[in-house]
Amino acid sequence: MPRSRQRRSKGSGSGTIKIEPVGVIRSPYTAKEETPIQGAFRQEVEGRVEIFPEYAEALKDIEGFSHIILLYVFDRAGPVELVRPTFLDDAPHGVFASRHPCRPNGIGLTVVRLLGREGRTLRVSGIDTLDLTPVVDIKPYIPRFDCFPEAREGWIAGKGERPKPPGRE
Amino acid sequence: MPRSRQRRSKGSGSGTIKIEPVGVIRSPYTAKEETPIQGAFRQEVEGRVEIFPEYAEALKDIEGFSHIILLYVFDRAGPVELVRPTFLDDAPHGVFASRHPCRPNGIGLTVVRLLGREGRTLRVSGIDTLDLTPVVDIKPYIPRFDCFPEAREGWIAGKGERPKPPGRE
Repeated sequence: MPRSRQRRSKGSGSGTIKIEPVGVIRSPYTAKEETPIQGAFRQEVEGRVEIFPEYAEALKDIEGFSHIILLYVFDRAGPVELVRPTFLDDAPHGVFASRHPCRPNGIGLTVVRLLGREGRTLRVSGIDTLDLTPVVDIKPYIPRFDCFPEAREGWIAGKGERPKPPGRE
Repeated sequence: MPRSRQRRSKGSGSGTIKIEPVGVIRSPYTAKEETPIQGAFRQEVEGRVEIFPEYAEALKDIEGFSHIILLYVFDRAGPVELVRPTFLDDAPHGVFASRHPCRPNGIGLTVVRLLGREGRTLRVSGIDTLDLTPVVDIKPYIPRFDCFPEAREGWIAGKGERPKPPGRE
């Protein structure tokens, strides 16, 4: 891998893409302070994913999966801080070592349970986003590819749910 | 949730964002047909994630995690087809029920093992991307949030690795 083959994509076109919503998440949460720190902390909370008509076809066979990965835009996040206190800890951590919303390329990821599908609407539980959050991708969750029970939790080990400290966005 | 509050974001600004690489993945794979269908099928294969200097700070404390989630751009994918035969099956499936690269908002997701960090370079294994793939986000993998061993695998159940059928991109 000679060094000359390296490309530096940032800001120069290659690898820079425009992301457009393919649907919207409906959830009971209308204010940031109401959303759980992670969906796993509120597995019973239900919501819906409404896919826009022009993408509805892409849902074919999704109902066979019990869990799906939602990628969405943190469309109401505050300014990016690369190192910052998080919801789960007052000590500062790098945002790539955290799931905090205020991050470069503000894309969020939550694994939710797929309860059912009616047309282009998915009923899900374990949702943790604000109502009307734009969805940009859905991927099937596949334990063989995505489940690593032995994974080490780094600074998050032992951190349980707590009220979101104010001012953390 | 009154209907009037629904926003339709597509193409109109809100929820449409520009994604810029924060680094690049170095892998042994220089041609599409060499890449494994999923990293989980080649867990021993090592690669590197090189984060650009201006984002290096965001890696603080990442070395405590044994697994990380890479989000990257499928920068050499073919045209989007919403329903299509996949690498693992000749029957057509919706791309939201598949991990296939040719999808709206071409963002890929792979959970890799973090073997070590030297400055802004992460040594990883289980990589399945082409060399020089642009990385757009890194998130820590946290079993409490991300591991669902009981999840149902839909049409992928029982599908094992096979040679990639030609012409599937």
